Amino acid sequence: MRDKRNINVCFSPELFPLFSDGKKIVVVVDVLRATSVISTAFQYGIKDVIAIQSLEEATKYKGEENCIVAAERNAEALEGFDYGNSPFQYMNDEIKGKTLVLTTTNGTRAINMAREHIVITSSFVNFNAVCNFIKNREEDVLIFCSGWKGNFNMEDSLFAGKLSDKLLNSDNFQSNCDSALASISLYKSAKDDLFSYLENSAHRNRLKHLNMEPDTRFCLSPTFESDIVPILKNGKLIRHEK
Amino acid sequence: MRDKRNINVCFSPELFPLFSDGKKIVVVVDVLRATSVISTAFQYGIKDVIAIQSLEEATKYKGEENCIVAAERNAEALEGFDYGNSPFQYMNDEIKGKTLVLTTTNGTRAINMAREHIVITSSFVNFNAVCNFIKNREEDVLIFCSGWKGNFNMEDSLFAGKLSDKLLNSDNFQSNCDSALASISLYKSAKDDLFSYLENSAHRNRLKHLNMEPDTRFCLSPTFESDIVPILKNGKLIRHEK
Repeated sequence: MRDKRNINVCFSPELFPLFSDGKKIVVVVDVLRATSVISTAFQYGIKDVIAIQSLEEATKYKGEENCIVAAERNAEALEGFDYGNSPFQYMNDEIKGKTLVLTTTNGTRAINMAREHIVITSSFVNFNAVCNFIKNREEDVLIFCSGWKGNFNMEDSLFAGKLSDKLLNSDNFQSNCDSALASISLYKSAKDDLFSYLENSAHRNRLKHLNMEPDTRFCLSPTFESDIVPILKNGKLIRHEK
Repeated sequence: MRDKRNINVCFSPELFPLFSDGKKIVVVVDVLRATSVISTAFQYGIKDVIAIQSLEEATKYKGEENCIVAAERNAEALEGFDYGNSPFQYMNDEIKGKTLVLTTTNGTRAINMAREHIVITSSFVNFNAVCNFIKNREEDVLIFCSGWKGNFNMEDSLFAGKLSDKLLNSDNFQSNCDSALASISLYKSAKDDLFSYLENSAHRNRLKHLNMEPDTRFCLSPTFESDIVPILKNGKLIRHEK
């Protein structure tokens, strides 16, 4: 019998090379807000998502048919682009069947760093679907927090704790990773009220300043659940077909 | 009036460039065991400590008069060196007035990375002395966890939480750093019994395997307190003179 499957948590893109092996399932997390946006867009019928790191490259898609180009830097939408990084913008029928080209400060960077692996994206919106996806596979798992400009952030780490805890509570997983243990401890301290727990976190303060409290509330406690797992294939995130 | 002094926590050497500004007080932490060893050695009368990253360079000091050369890699002492990385080895009169040349897996790397700053080393052995040192200065503070081979580790993060919490409870400090918030939350979950809390941590398991449980107990809950703050001057850690 095979050993149990390992769970690791990577707290930031700067640490990713320490975990990268080309074999693991990498679950990219950017709770505020890229991976919450991606889940929301899929739920509202987007066909696929091209996650791009550079603004210049994203700009090339402007004006293309059936293409929505969205850009965010430092938590703000950028002028001249169709959409920004708020999940509410994607809750409409206009996006159905289209391609979303998305560039953000942290999340799209993480997706691209991990591209030699099996990459899926997760958020509180599709938490259960991601758990089921992972349980039905056999690879080790890396939960990859997008962080903030290369550094640790609180919200992604809390999500990593929820996911690690859920997987470790089933029989087939183990962890010898201090980041996983720490994220679980943080999640247990926070889970009764994530919103209040994040009150003093750095990114929540950034969004508060920009009047994005409704976005934060939605991303931490979504009003719907999505059973779609976005998976990276040939450079595009598409729905994973069960 | 000047703004409050900022406290940041850096969880690993890989993240240090994000915090480095040449101005902060950098408190280097390697609880298991380099900075605990350094505190212990000063308490037992060592004159100064040269923290060296490479084994080759440390080797050059072998045979020098009044010099103790100590080397550790992957938690094990290395053959051919006078001392290893256990604090108990330093609790003797032989070390009095001598220079300790020390190279370890993580701690000595962190000390060298930070050398353009005001660098002090800390552990549970000299916790209060370090608090007082910091309070008597004016610079911002970075608590720099040595981690494990570039990655986050639990024990240094717990220490960072204890120190951040203590400083933030006095009037002159503030933090907008998620790593500091997280470390405080972890410390509060762990503080009633650090030893048990670390039961499943990765490095504790390494030391357990190597029969170094007494070292771990001492480093988490030292049998004496030192009022010495080691500070880096001209490439050597010396006692800070009050």
